[in-house]
Amino acid sequence: MTKKEILEINKTRKIELKRKNLKSKKELAMIYTPGIAEVCLEIKKDNSLVYEYTSKKNLVAIITDGSRILGLGNIGKFAGIPVIESKSLIYKKFGDVDAIPISLATQNKEEIINIIKAISPSFGAINLEDIENPKALEIYEKLSNELDIPVFHDDQHGTAIITLAGLINALKILKKEKDIKICIAGCGSAGIGITKLLLAYGFKNIIVYDSKGAIYKGRTDLNKFKEEIARETNPENFKGNLKDALNKADVFIGVSGIGNLIKKEDIKRMNKRSIVFALTNPVPEIMPDEIKNLDNVEIVATGRSDFPNQINNAVVFPGFMKFLLKNRIKKITLDLEILAAETIANSVKKIDKNHIVPSIFSNVSKNLANMKI
Amino acid sequence: MTKKEILEINKTRKIELKRKNLKSKKELAMIYTPGIAEVCLEIKKDNSLVYEYTSKKNLVAIITDGSRILGLGNIGKFAGIPVIESKSLIYKKFGDVDAIPISLATQNKEEIINIIKAISPSFGAINLEDIENPKALEIYEKLSNELDIPVFHDDQHGTAIITLAGLINALKILKKEKDIKICIAGCGSAGIGITKLLLAYGFKNIIVYDSKGAIYKGRTDLNKFKEEIARETNPENFKGNLKDALNKADVFIGVSGIGNLIKKEDIKRMNKRSIVFALTNPVPEIMPDEIKNLDNVEIVATGRSDFPNQINNAVVFPGFMKFLLKNRIKKITLDLEILAAETIANSVKKIDKNHIVPSIFSNVSKNLANMKI
Repeated sequence: MTKKEILEINKTRKIELKRKNLKSKKELAMIYTPGIAEVCLEIKKDNSLVYEYTSKKNLVAIITDGSRILGLGNIGKFAGIPVIESKSLIYKKFGDVDAIPISLATQNKEEIINIIKAISPSFGAINLEDIENPKALEIYEKLSNELDIPVFHDDQHGTAIITLAGLINALKILKKEKDIKICIAGCGSAGIGITKLLLAYGFKNIIVYDSKGAIYKGRTDLNKFKEEIARETNPENFKGNLKDALNKADVFIGVSGIGNLIKKEDIKRMNKRSIVFALTNPVPEIMPDEIKNLDNVEIVATGRSDFPNQINNAVVFPGFMKFLLKNRIKKITLDLEILAAETIANSVKKIDKNHIVPSIFSNVSKNLANMKI
Repeated sequence: MTKKEILEINKTRKIELKRKNLKSKKELAMIYTPGIAEVCLEIKKDNSLVYEYTSKKNLVAIITDGSRILGLGNIGKFAGIPVIESKSLIYKKFGDVDAIPISLATQNKEEIINIIKAISPSFGAINLEDIENPKALEIYEKLSNELDIPVFHDDQHGTAIITLAGLINALKILKKEKDIKICIAGCGSAGIGITKLLLAYGFKNIIVYDSKGAIYKGRTDLNKFKEEIARETNPENFKGNLKDALNKADVFIGVSGIGNLIKKEDIKRMNKRSIVFALTNPVPEIMPDEIKNLDNVEIVATGRSDFPNQINNAVVFPGFMKFLLKNRIKKITLDLEILAAETIANSVKKIDKNHIVPSIFSNVSKNLANMKI
C-alpha cells in the first residue's frame, strides 16, 4: 500500500447519483412540472407522506467541521472531505444507505447545531463525524434531543458498539464474567461512548483515564460529560496513574489517540488471561508484537487491518444505520447499542482468540439491518 | 395523466447513490482508514486539490426553503422536496450532474445565506430553487458575490436563457430586428432575469409590468431590483396599463404567475407578425387556442408540454450546469447566458413556427455542456 497507490485509487469519483430512466415527455410531465404539484399537495396535507413520496427515508447527511479529522487534528473545511466521502461509499456498499457528505465552513458550535437542524428536512438521519470534543458531544446531545430523526455519532456509538461486540466474544472465550476490572485510556467521544455502553451492559468495575489522569469523583477540572463518567465509574475513587490501575486489571481498552502510550511492563501487571484492545490508529497504545509472548495476555485487538481482531467502526455503521432508517428510529438508545453489539458478536461464525469480531465482508451489515425490535 | 398515475410514479426513490465496488480489505484500507489520511494531507497542503481528490467537481446542492414552490405558494419544509428531487433526477439524466436536494427548515434570509455558505465546501455549485421574492434575488446577489463557486438561480437564469433562445429563433423566422417593442408581464425572478438578458442582448424597447402596473423611473414603491429595471427599460417612461402598452408591441412575454391575465382583444392591438410567449404554468396568461386565428399573431409559446413551443427550464439547467462545473466557472455572467441561449437556439435542427426551441430529449444538454469559452 504505497502513497502513490492510495492517491490514485482516491481520484475516482466516490459520490455519484444513480441515473434514473425517463422515457417520454409524458413521464417528464408527471415527475416534474406540472404533475409534481399533485405530490407536493399530498405532502402539504399530511407531512408524514414525505417518507412515502421522497427519498428522505434512505438519505443520511454525514457532517464534519474538519476540526478533528482522524488523528490529523484540525485540518479545515476541505481536507476532511475524503474521509466523509469514503464513509459514504462504505455506507452504500455495505448498507445500501445513501449518505451525502457535507463539510462545513464553520467550526462554531451553535452555528453547526443550527445548520444541521435547518438542513434536516430532506434527511432520514444525521451522521456526525470527526468533530472535536467536547463540542461534538454537546452538538450530539442537543441535536438528539431536538431532532425527530436519529443522530448517529460514529466516534461515540460506532466505536462503543464494535468494542462491546469484541469484548462479548473475548469474555465468552475466556469464560470471564461481568465482575472483571476494566481500564479505559481515553475520555473523548470514544472513551465516553464505550464506558456508558459497558456500564449499561452490566460491567461495574471500570476506571477511565484522560490525558491528565484518572477520572474520579471530586476531580475539579472535568467537563460535564466526564463528571458523569466520574459519578458512574471508579468505585474505589482511585486517583493513581494508569500503570498502577492496570494492576490486576482484566481488560485494557485504549482509545487515547496516543501511540505507544503503555509499556510491556505495564501490561505484565494485568491479571491472568487478560484482554488488550489497543485501538488508537495508526499506532496503537502498544504494538501487538510487543506483548504476544506475555503469559498473562490471551486476546489482543487493534484498529488496524494488518493484525487479527480489527476493531473497526465500518463493521457497525452501514448496517446499524440501515436498521435505524428502516424502523424510523428517532433516537439511539443504549438498548439499541447493546442489541447491535450482540448481533455483531453473534455474526462471527467460529470465534477464537484471533476472530472475536466479524469481517465487514461477512453478513454482519445485513444482520444489523434486519435486527428485530 | 391521472393523479393516481402521478402519485404512483413519484413513489420511486429518486435519489440513490451509485454503488461503488470495493473488493478487498486492502482496497478498504486505502480508501478508508488508515490510507485516506494521505489524501487528507495532500488537500491540506494544497486546497485546490479538493477538485482532484473529491467529488466536489460534480456535486451541486439544490436548495429551497419551500416559500414559493411552483405556483403553490409557501408550502413549507417538506412539501417542496418532490420538486427538488425531480430536478435532481433531471440533472443526472440529461447533464450527468450529481445534484443533492436540500430543503431548509428556515425561511429567514440571513440564515439561508449563512447555511449555504457553511455547506458550500463539499459542493461545486449551488442551485437556488423556488424561494420567494425579493428574498431569492437578495440571497442570489449576496452568495454570487461571496462564494467562489457558481450560484445558479433557475427561476432567474434558466427562464431567461430559454426565453431568449426561443426569441432568437422566432425573430429569425419573422426576420425582425432588435428594434422591436417588447412587453413583459411579471417582475419577479423570471421577469427580472429575462429583462436583464434581453437588454444585454441588445433589445432597447422593453416595458415591464408588475402587479401594480408599469415599471417606470420615479415610481416610488419599487424594490432595488425593480428600480434597476426602471432605469434601464421603458424609454418613454410610459405609465399606462398593460393593455395600452401592448399597442404596436411585437413581443409579449408573460411570467406573471397569473393565468388568463390578458384577453384576445389586448393581443389584437399588437403589431403584425407578433410573438406571444405566455409562460405562466399551469394556466398561461392567454390560452394558445384563443389567439390561434388572429391575423397578427405568428408565433405562440407556453410553458406547457401539451402545446407546441414549450419554453421549459429543463432544457437549460442540466447542460448549462455541467458546463459551469467542467469549466470551474465562478460566477454566471450575462455573456455566458447569451452563449447558452444561442447554443440552445442553434440546437433546433429545423426551425419553424412550431419549433423554436429544442426538445430536452435532443442533444441540447450535450451542446450546452460542451460550449467553448
